[in-house]
Amino acid sequence: MAHSAWEHSVHCTTGADHMTTSEFRMYGRQVVDWIADYYNHIEERSVHARVRPNEIRDGLPEEIPQQGVSFESLMADIDCLVLPGITHWQHPRFFGYFPANASFPSILGELLSAGLGVQGMSWITSPVATDLERLMLDWLAQLLDLPQSFRSDEPGGGVIQDSASSAVLVALVAGLNRASGGTASRHGVGNSNYTVYASKEAHSSVEKAVQIAGVGGQNLRLVPTSSGTLAMRSDLLEAAIRSDIAAGMAPALVVGTVGTTSTTAVDPIREIGQICKETGVWLHVDAAYAGVAACCPEFRWLNEGVDLADSYCTNPHKWFLTNFDCDAFWVADRRDMINALSVMPEYLKNMATESGEVTDYRDWQIPLGRRFRALKLWFTLSWYGAQGLQAHIRHHVALAQEFASWVGSDNRFEVVSAHPLSLVCFRACGDDAVNERLYRRLNETGRIFVSHTIVDGRFVIRMAIGGTLTERRHVREAWELIKDCFGK
Amino acid sequence: MAHSAWEHSVHCTTGADHMTTSEFRMYGRQVVDWIADYYNHIEERSVHARVRPNEIRDGLPEEIPQQGVSFESLMADIDCLVLPGITHWQHPRFFGYFPANASFPSILGELLSAGLGVQGMSWITSPVATDLERLMLDWLAQLLDLPQSFRSDEPGGGVIQDSASSAVLVALVAGLNRASGGTASRHGVGNSNYTVYASKEAHSSVEKAVQIAGVGGQNLRLVPTSSGTLAMRSDLLEAAIRSDIAAGMAPALVVGTVGTTSTTAVDPIREIGQICKETGVWLHVDAAYAGVAACCPEFRWLNEGVDLADSYCTNPHKWFLTNFDCDAFWVADRRDMINALSVMPEYLKNMATESGEVTDYRDWQIPLGRRFRALKLWFTLSWYGAQGLQAHIRHHVALAQEFASWVGSDNRFEVVSAHPLSLVCFRACGDDAVNERLYRRLNETGRIFVSHTIVDGRFVIRMAIGGTLTERRHVREAWELIKDCFGK
Repeated sequence: MAHSAWEHSVHCTTGADHMTTSEFRMYGRQVVDWIADYYNHIEERSVHARVRPNEIRDGLPEEIPQQGVSFESLMADIDCLVLPGITHWQHPRFFGYFPANASFPSILGELLSAGLGVQGMSWITSPVATDLERLMLDWLAQLLDLPQSFRSDEPGGGVIQDSASSAVLVALVAGLNRASGGTASRHGVGNSNYTVYASKEAHSSVEKAVQIAGVGGQNLRLVPTSSGTLAMRSDLLEAAIRSDIAAGMAPALVVGTVGTTSTTAVDPIREIGQICKETGVWLHVDAAYAGVAACCPEFRWLNEGVDLADSYCTNPHKWFLTNFDCDAFWVADRRDMINALSVMPEYLKNMATESGEVTDYRDWQIPLGRRFRALKLWFTLSWYGAQGLQAHIRHHVALAQEFASWVGSDNRFEVVSAHPLSLVCFRACGDDAVNERLYRRLNETGRIFVSHTIVDGRFVIRMAIGGTLTERRHVREAWELIKDCFGK
Repeated sequence: MAHSAWEHSVHCTTGADHMTTSEFRMYGRQVVDWIADYYNHIEERSVHARVRPNEIRDGLPEEIPQQGVSFESLMADIDCLVLPGITHWQHPRFFGYFPANASFPSILGELLSAGLGVQGMSWITSPVATDLERLMLDWLAQLLDLPQSFRSDEPGGGVIQDSASSAVLVALVAGLNRASGGTASRHGVGNSNYTVYASKEAHSSVEKAVQIAGVGGQNLRLVPTSSGTLAMRSDLLEAAIRSDIAAGMAPALVVGTVGTTSTTAVDPIREIGQICKETGVWLHVDAAYAGVAACCPEFRWLNEGVDLADSYCTNPHKWFLTNFDCDAFWVADRRDMINALSVMPEYLKNMATESGEVTDYRDWQIPLGRRFRALKLWFTLSWYGAQGLQAHIRHHVALAQEFASWVGSDNRFEVVSAHPLSLVCFRACGDDAVNERLYRRLNETGRIFVSHTIVDGRFVIRMAIGGTLTERRHVREAWELIKDCFGK
């Protein structure tokens, strides 16, 4: 049989010393065990790396070796050279940024995807890559109770993007297509003065998208937020849009945020959506972190007004146990997006596409090529089931509420914003210098990792709870450490 | 010890029934063995899937299950539901498009990356993710004999993009920044009439980038090619640029291709580069497929003129044994790119960035988040070594030359373009209908998979040799099949 030679021969006839399947079985087990051991002992590590820039160059050759090295030596380098430079995002006491929580089922889905090594750019290039993704986005839309128009058998549909940054860029390009009556991709954005709107608290990816799409940062209107809620002032949004229209500008996109990066503030999407409907502007809702919480009925309020959105995204790679990258992005009507992003060279033409009966996801994203990311999402959703995912979300929200209660009941500290989900922003009484010192001390311990932001002009520490392994005792330890470091 | 509870308890206290490390060891081995078995038996499969759209829905529930399902049932679904929908890109008789050849070392690198689950968006978020990537891009630049300015300790540097599509978009945004004197990201592209140039044979990603960046498809000049070589006519490029400048347009980017998608044609990069230097236009060289061949001294001619390029990319995920996605992208001077793509919200500020001593790769790409892709590139480069990679390239080139000689010596067929690398474009004597029928018949057999293109207005079959497992006997079988199907 053909495969036995491949199984047993180190030197095959394909021109290079490939790893044989027998070796792959052996080394694959070693890597699987290495990962299991890594998780078993992850708590013992400093959360953040303590290395100087480019330290890894001291241990690796400056040039590629002429002859291949053994797998054993690579794994030894992982331990000695790579691990010291890792800041451990999967550490149960990692509380920085937003989580990027992974799970073993997801990791195995990623492994299978890498093993299969297929391209999902067009339906024809590996049909199940597209069709499983359509189904998973339908599953997720149903689980999160998103609008019916987002389903794949409606005018809309869902797709996996690498990140919410790419999602907002796709939304912007689609919005420009609509605002231009379908001409922007052909004529460029040079014939009109397009404008984009988001709250002052919106993610920096909006500004980046505006720069990339040629609209220009000066045409991004950062709408003020209500003090207290930090939610977009929809009255000021409407005033800005009307004023711009009167001045001859062409509003192309409004980004509403459900769960801002700084504080998880929630913009009034229904009010914003009504303004967008009246003015014909594309509404994109960025719920990158918070959106997945809507799998729980008690967090369905996060979806209020999303039925008015033209596009929406949330990241299973943040708080839904799916390893990066996996942003779920939906549109209510796919035509503007496809018109803006479609190109069809001869070498990609095929009968399936011409039949109009299949989805070609290359027209739903910035790049052409795409991995089979639906596998890891399928493994994750299926392993946990709806109830497991709900329990996961509720667990972190409960921990955050308990943490906030500890902070709130200690008069040396204050919680600085609403915390309906699993992020708590807090500060110590005192000026910014006091808080910056506390922040530095906390991270220097290596026991926890937190990040920071500015709220109402004041330096604030962000405690983002969401690690797969994070239990109550880890949050408790963080709180004890906070009190200790403040007292010093 | 903390880890033992995690190791042995199915029901931990983190709110969901996570897969334990013990289960991960067991299921991880199953997936590794599944992949090994898949490769051992891959030859027995039809190369392309034989499914109707959305067939997978017949076997999977329409909604997410309420309770989690077993891993065993997922793996059973992989066999019964997923595999029939796969077109096998790793099949040794897959000759379509360009290869996306994977290798076991690379797959294990991807697994480790998924296991670690870290973010490489900023240096501080996991330093080794950035520093290993810098080193790997330096290794690759040295291996391919790319210009010194591309090294990380020079004004330029390298980075991993997801694909060549994103690379050309980054190059365009950087080129617009330069052409606008640094104002485009702020003011947008609306105040000038930017133009972009590429040959008629350039990849469709150039057109897509022009659409996304707001330049508009009508401002993309597709420069004619020389008949025969299908290389860009540099005299016509120069005429187009000069004519546009005289008409008040602002040339922002020229894309030169080294190895076009249709036929691996090579544009005259030195001549193009000299025109770009004289006119101040950013030159991006797209060597997505062909560039890696320069690891062999006999293919260094592919680099002729690349010292004049402002940016350059080649895809280890195409022909260099690194599983998708991994596009290697370099710039000769990183400032324009960083100026165009940098945004700095409060929550990403950190002392390492402020010191100016580290690289933050988020400013080198479209999205913010990024996986630790350097691991799989490191594993691949290290396992094979320079000599193994050279042998890999030479093996496929030799097979392609032999295949071309078979075609050329059979008077029922003709080779239709130069084939210096591992792609051979050929056709049967007769009209397009004859060739379209041959093409359909070949793919219908399931024994091989080929794709097609149009050359000089005629339908042509593309035989792209580059699979990790492809041996001489597979190419021989393809040739026998071609003769058989033509004779029918």
